[in-house]
Amino acid sequence: MPLVTVDLPRDLYREKHEQISTGIHQAQIDALGIPADDKFQIFTPYDPEDPTPRFNTDRPAQVIVGLTMVHRHTITEKQELYKQILLQLGRIGIDPSDVHIPLTENDYHDWYAGSL
Amino acid sequence: MPLVTVDLPRDLYREKHEQISTGIHQAQIDALGIPADDKFQIFTPYDPEDPTPRFNTDRPAQVIVGLTMVHRHTITEKQELYKQILLQLGRIGIDPSDVHIPLTENDYHDWYAGSL
Amino acid sequence: MPLVTVDLPRDLYREKHEQISTGIHQAQIDALGIPADDKFQIFTPYDPEDPTPRFNTDRPAQVIVGLTMVHRHTITEKQELYKQILLQLGRIGIDPSDVHIPLTENDYHDWYAGSL
Repeated sequence: MPLVTVDLPRDLYREKHEQISTGIHQAQIDALGIPADDKFQIFTPYDPEDPTPRFNTDRPAQVIVGLTMVHRHTITEKQELYKQILLQLGRIGIDPSDVHIPLTENDYHDWYAGSL
Repeated sequence: MPLVTVDLPRDLYREKHEQISTGIHQAQIDALGIPADDKFQIFTPYDPEDPTPRFNTDRPAQVIVGLTMVHRHTITEKQELYKQILLQLGRIGIDPSDVHIPLTENDYHDWYAGSL
Repeated sequence: MPLVTVDLPRDLYREKHEQISTGIHQAQIDALGIPADDKFQIFTPYDPEDPTPRFNTDRPAQVIVGLTMVHRHTITEKQELYKQILLQLGRIGIDPSDVHIPLTENDYHDWYAGSL
């Protein structure tokens, strides 16, 4: 049920999207204990020659990991999630300072995911 | 004012986006009684040969209907909305098990939609 | 930390994305006093010949400014933000009636943005 959206440079997407996908999913399992078959990700590559996404920094490798999930975790658990995501992405060679994570919470009844 | 975002396979988008658009809008009218002229949708086609969106299943026809709307409906009303969306999409040949709906709620003052 | 997503016609994007980027950022500074280096925007151009985003109106120049930010501002401050965004976009020739702004709020601990 958690929805993960990943905006990332097209080259990084081409070379490493499987590792990134697996890494973020593993972070959710390790930090929050989500079921292993609860994987729900959308990747959106962008072209750095397009000035988008646009930051004040000139870093070409920004990765934005948007999370939408049910409000049921403590602040500590959420921080552990960010830490595990950074750890997993770090192993793939993505610098933590290139990662941004905005999280939006909703409730159990704010999802249709296969059954009513 | 409700914002609807639809991520769907490019072929499905080409063939049926008008029916999908009309169906989701009709579901909002039938379940929530929104005004008929309150239609606010963004479609984002994806190419299934790209492994995105990426699920554990291999289903090629995943349709993600993201909803952002004002917090004013009961749980029952929201479940009726999901049911009507599935009904409308079912008529177009989209299997309910291929549909995911994440909903995010905000407040009346969290919109600019034509007047301050 | 505020995340800004801008969906806009491709021609408008090509011609004016820098002005739009600067204008929205200035509106955030003027209305909310965010730090000048806190710029975090994703632009997504669409092709108007695609019927997306799809509204009941036939306006070709719809600009959707999605905001995700920490819940800490008053209603008055948020309305001032919308007003400043409309003012800045108006200077670039974008009609307020072509602009939609959905806002989603979260909390301080719902972000990773460079430090844990």
